[in-house]
Amino acid sequence: MNSVIETILNHRSQRSFLPRPLSEDQIKTIVESAQAASTSSFIQAYSIIGITDPGKKKALAELAGSQTYVEENGHLMVFCADLYRHTLIGELEGQDLEASLDSTEKFMVACIDAALAAQNAAIAAESMGLGICYIGGIRNNLPEVCKVLNTPDRVIPLFGMVFGYPDQVNDKKPRLPFEHVYMEDEYQQSKDRYLEQLKDYNRTTSEYYKERTGGKRSDTWTSQMAHMLSAGRRMYMKTFVQGKGLNKK
Amino acid sequence: MNSVIETILNHRSQRSFLPRPLSEDQIKTIVESAQAASTSSFIQAYSIIGITDPGKKKALAELAGSQTYVEENGHLMVFCADLYRHTLIGELEGQDLEASLDSTEKFMVACIDAALAAQNAAIAAESMGLGICYIGGIRNNLPEVCKVLNTPDRVIPLFGMVFGYPDQVNDKKPRLPFEHVYMEDEYQQSKDRYLEQLKDYNRTTSEYYKERTGGKRSDTWTSQMAHMLSAGRRMYMKTFVQGKGLNKK
Repeated sequence: MNSVIETILNHRSQRSFLPRPLSEDQIKTIVESAQAASTSSFIQAYSIIGITDPGKKKALAELAGSQTYVEENGHLMVFCADLYRHTLIGELEGQDLEASLDSTEKFMVACIDAALAAQNAAIAAESMGLGICYIGGIRNNLPEVCKVLNTPDRVIPLFGMVFGYPDQVNDKKPRLPFEHVYMEDEYQQSKDRYLEQLKDYNRTTSEYYKERTGGKRSDTWTSQMAHMLSAGRRMYMKTFVQGKGLNKK
Repeated sequence: MNSVIETILNHRSQRSFLPRPLSEDQIKTIVESAQAASTSSFIQAYSIIGITDPGKKKALAELAGSQTYVEENGHLMVFCADLYRHTLIGELEGQDLEASLDSTEKFMVACIDAALAAQNAAIAAESMGLGICYIGGIRNNLPEVCKVLNTPDRVIPLFGMVFGYPDQVNDKKPRLPFEHVYMEDEYQQSKDRYLEQLKDYNRTTSEYYKERTGGKRSDTWTSQMAHMLSAGRRMYMKTFVQGKGLNKK
């Protein structure tokens, strides 16, 4: 196993950091790594906003559900799907790009582009001995997040990422079984086999929580998911994204 | 610079491969690397389909726009946004998850999850000396791609990825200027400055193409983008995705 794969496989979300900021060099390397990722047809439909202002950091931490690690870390970035740039390209080139920019296809492309860049950022940071955590919580209240970040139309902040020097090492959570996620030639056709795999995985996650909590917790993955999904969180998203001029057509 | 960051910064899309397949071990390591990526609230809303059947590979290559490298490579995988798994979880747990699974929020989560996994796969492969290329072309005709892959509802193939031993090394394309993609504390507010950056970058890309083609080509990035976006490609996507039970509410 080479050191790259070692870094990748060693990932765990880090939610507690030493009070030591990242250096400018580290931030630059992380962003350059993000930019080196593939981008759909070279569209580069994302932006990254680094948060240095303590007031803004505090505001984002509150909006993300009062998670202290969003405020207390070595650095916080917000990754945005961004087709504002391409709106301006329409002006610059005197061409009507509206139908394309309004489309679900281009919204997907922008989400994917931002995520590819972010994952490069995550791996680069982890290779430097830093810990990271994605902050999906900013999607709890995107209208307010957009105000804090002063984003124009066709820019959607998708998630934050916190970086920092870890002050403790977390366990790695067991993922779905390999053969459940990776299939050959077509999608797995046996529903019974599929459900069996989920039940197997439930035993694994249940064991994992039991071990970690000395038996206090033993929830299964499917019960966690059902609980989370039954709540119907962030149901404003469709209207919000369309109001920003994306995912409309 | 450590070897991880070196691998990341050294990325270029590879479209021509030696006729040598990946080993099972390599495929396993790539998928395990994909699975190690972060996932929103542990939802794991993606699947990967590896294509070994030559007929299916040929069919996908044709659907992606007759790109020979989709057929001729060391391995081809298709990364899918996948909430079918969570539809079954609703059954298994006896809970109504439909509103959540229908939502734009969860569609975004599934696209992002698949992209994070894919980028780990890309970096892992490149660290082994393999080349990769994302294949967005499969989105030209997703109804047919879904037939080839036999995917159920709530599964959207987002892109392919080809892997293989490179038979030539491409140049690295220059990315947008750092300060255009990375901002501090808020979105860049000066439209004039923003447009200046685009024009600077146009000079860079124009020079890049001139050098590569001995002066035959000198297009700017904004003209490329305007050309691509004015065509309004894949405008069926919204209806298609909604027809599959995603991005509806």
